[in-house]
Amino acid sequence: MAELSRRRLLGAGALVAGTAGAAAVVGPRLVSDPATGEAAVEPFYGPHQGGVATVPQRYATLLAFDLRPEHRTVAGLRSIMKLWTADAARLTQGLPALADTEPELATSPARLTVTVGYGPTLFDALRLTRAQPATLRELPAFSVDRLEPRWGGGHLVVQLCADSPLPVSHAVRVLTKNVRSMATVRWIQRGFREPIRTEDPAGSMRNLMGQVDGTVNLAGSQFDQFVWDHGEDQDWFAGGTILIVRRIRAEMDTWDQLGRDTKELVVGRTLGSGAPLTGHQESDEPDFDAHVGGIPVIPPNSHIALARHHKDSEQFLRRPYNYDDPPPAGQISDSGLLFLAFQRDPAAQFVPVQQRISDGDALNEWVTPVGSASFAVLPGVREGEYLGQRLLDAVDRATNGDNG
Amino acid sequence: MAELSRRRLLGAGALVAGTAGAAAVVGPRLVSDPATGEAAVEPFYGPHQGGVATVPQRYATLLAFDLRPEHRTVAGLRSIMKLWTADAARLTQGLPALADTEPELATSPARLTVTVGYGPTLFDALRLTRAQPATLRELPAFSVDRLEPRWGGGHLVVQLCADSPLPVSHAVRVLTKNVRSMATVRWIQRGFREPIRTEDPAGSMRNLMGQVDGTVNLAGSQFDQFVWDHGEDQDWFAGGTILIVRRIRAEMDTWDQLGRDTKELVVGRTLGSGAPLTGHQESDEPDFDAHVGGIPVIPPNSHIALARHHKDSEQFLRRPYNYDDPPPAGQISDSGLLFLAFQRDPAAQFVPVQQRISDGDALNEWVTPVGSASFAVLPGVREGEYLGQRLLDAVDRATNGDNG
Ligand code: HEM
Ligand code: HEM
Repeated sequence: MAELSRRRLLGAGALVAGTAGAAAVVGPRLVSDPATGEAAVEPFYGPHQGGVATVPQRYATLLAFDLRPEHRTVAGLRSIMKLWTADAARLTQGLPALADTEPELATSPARLTVTVGYGPTLFDALRLTRAQPATLRELPAFSVDRLEPRWGGGHLVVQLCADSPLPVSHAVRVLTKNVRSMATVRWIQRGFREPIRTEDPAGSMRNLMGQVDGTVNLAGSQFDQFVWDHGEDQDWFAGGTILIVRRIRAEMDTWDQLGRDTKELVVGRTLGSGAPLTGHQESDEPDFDAHVGGIPVIPPNSHIALARHHKDSEQFLRRPYNYDDPPPAGQISDSGLLFLAFQRDPAAQFVPVQQRISDGDALNEWVTPVGSASFAVLPGVREGEYLGQRLLDAVDRATNGDNG
Repeated sequence: MAELSRRRLLGAGALVAGTAGAAAVVGPRLVSDPATGEAAVEPFYGPHQGGVATVPQRYATLLAFDLRPEHRTVAGLRSIMKLWTADAARLTQGLPALADTEPELATSPARLTVTVGYGPTLFDALRLTRAQPATLRELPAFSVDRLEPRWGGGHLVVQLCADSPLPVSHAVRVLTKNVRSMATVRWIQRGFREPIRTEDPAGSMRNLMGQVDGTVNLAGSQFDQFVWDHGEDQDWFAGGTILIVRRIRAEMDTWDQLGRDTKELVVGRTLGSGAPLTGHQESDEPDFDAHVGGIPVIPPNSHIALARHHKDSEQFLRRPYNYDDPPPAGQISDSGLLFLAFQRDPAAQFVPVQQRISDGDALNEWVTPVGSASFAVLPGVREGEYLGQRLLDAVDRATNGDNG
């Protein structure tokens, strides 16, 4: 009986796939957050992609993809870029993707951004190394690294950030589904952060080690100098940036055996306010020369003493997220930082800092890099353009030139 | 050099564990959410535990534990209950746990609730079956079930819910760490939900299949009738309730091949507003007798036609969360519902509904139960009392009586 009526009502006709009407029938579009009155939509078009200079959203998912062998071509990459550009242009603005099968999940984007990048292996696989930014390289090995292959590499990366996990989940599915015949997911990493003060969403967060995280960082005018590529090496890359993804596990069990004083000495800042050990407020400048009884107040091997830029040119943008995944059997935590650094040239900015850290940071005993990957984050696009178009058009021209 | 100064500064003395000062030095306590002005603290003490009648928070983590063999005793269970009660009483109120090693992570509880329950296997393991509520049973098998052992069972469950993932992560770690010598984690499940309308946090959410979820549910006065145990079978259990945890995978790849009309017929409600197919607004009563051309407008095998209570006594509280986990290799999604049902007696409430669903629900083709567990959620406590105390005191009395 049930089966009969079901056949009748949900019969062959109705069961035929049909998504044409989907985009039309959506709920009201929420463009501002009723709780805060703030705009809940980040711009998509512009000289740079969103998700870099954007005030950090609360949730991030990073997806690395590899092209399937038969799609390791410029044409394959172009198809993916056109699909993702169309998807991102709509989803970030609170509009369902084309043929979106869950259009209602798109209506509250909560500041969704979609940020696409290319790994060095993509340039190899497509024999485009002549167009690869010189600044895009795998990182050198550091002695602190305990890298697991499952958290490394990737032809492509997509960083999805929003103030709610729902639009992120929806966007992950749309972007993955639309390219599933051409690319496979290599890894997924998820994180969360929240500003310590709700009224200051760009301010510091607290990481799961309990520290105030995000005090010293680039400000507006420094982005041009330290983050955005100027196209000097590769024309097409002007407006892009290099993303370093480090998955850094926090060794919570041993960290939690330390006293508070030790934890503060290890970083060089207090746990309560995040003030430097030589100051009172988070924003106070640390005084690395201060001594008490001949002993430096901020240990020279503390995290901030070594992570601090020793040359002006070493500065970069940190945009980290906490991760907290189900632990392996027998453990009680698998958490740490999804450390995301953006800069023009990691060799001049990230690497010297990471090298100093690796060589002597007191914090090393309680944090372990387990994943590492580098990506060239594409420049932003104008309406009508697709992500990566400047590169792919240049490749076409070069190829035609070669042939002609 | 670095190593030298480190030894000096972070020397043996400083490295000694010391958490005594931890609870004292905490940041400002946030008791209301500045964005909404709503209280961000849920009460801990009372006749019932929080996390059941509580307006659903946005994040949930459920942890199932098994007692280690040497701690499968009333004394072992009592130790855990005392620790968890002390932790929960403080953390839910925005106070660090005793000897909290990350006290600052406790200051914004974001409506954190901690809800503790006992599985049927706990009563077996402790030979307390005489005190086991008759309503606490493993569910019967249903033909739709494809249960995976990794998502089933557990001596103990803790449900942690809050409007932010940070206090949930912190509470998970505190509660797990404090009992790690006595119990091991059996499974962890995480979920999220958000109200469709921010201004109506108790209202429906949208699940990842795109449906409005939560329309028909118990209201305030029905809790006494359908949710809270009255102690008729087991005195000590008055004020408790039975939690059924079902992990139900959504088969998104085939679901997304359906047209919108079919998706709506499968459930009996529209995707846009969640209105019944016979109505206009989400809150409209469905008319199961309406026919057009001799065909019922709401299919008799639709989800709402079968899930709806056919007898008054079949009602229960649904408090589901979306889950969206990294998919296994080759798949692009692993998502669905962490379906949490609370009721006095699953045999009279949940089971007949699940049986009808299993026998004929059109939705079955696109959802698969992969996990199942039952727990007796303990009654609430007064200040000075610990969770489960009424049971454990009664056991003590009975044991002394036996001996005396
Ligand atoms: C899990 C690992 C890490 C943790 C928990 C951590 C934590 C912190 C904390 C608490 C601060 C002080 C507050 C602030 O300015 O944000 C800080 C500062 C900083 N960290 Fe890290 N960090 C980690 C890894 C790294 C790595 C791998 C790098 C770069 C290679 C790095 C670079 C920096 C920089 C540049 C600063 C600012 C230093 C200054 O100028 O004062 N951190 N970090
Ligand atoms: C992934 C699996 C499931 C999905 C996606 C789902 C979805 C829905 C939706 C969209 C509704 C209509 C809106 C509402 O009233 O909330 C609904 C109603 C309902 N569902 Fe489910 N559901 C699922 C599993 C279950 C299970 C396993 C049960 C119980 C065994 C159940 C019991 C109910 C009940 C009692 C109602 C209210 C029916 C009424 O009185 O109108 N659901 N569900």
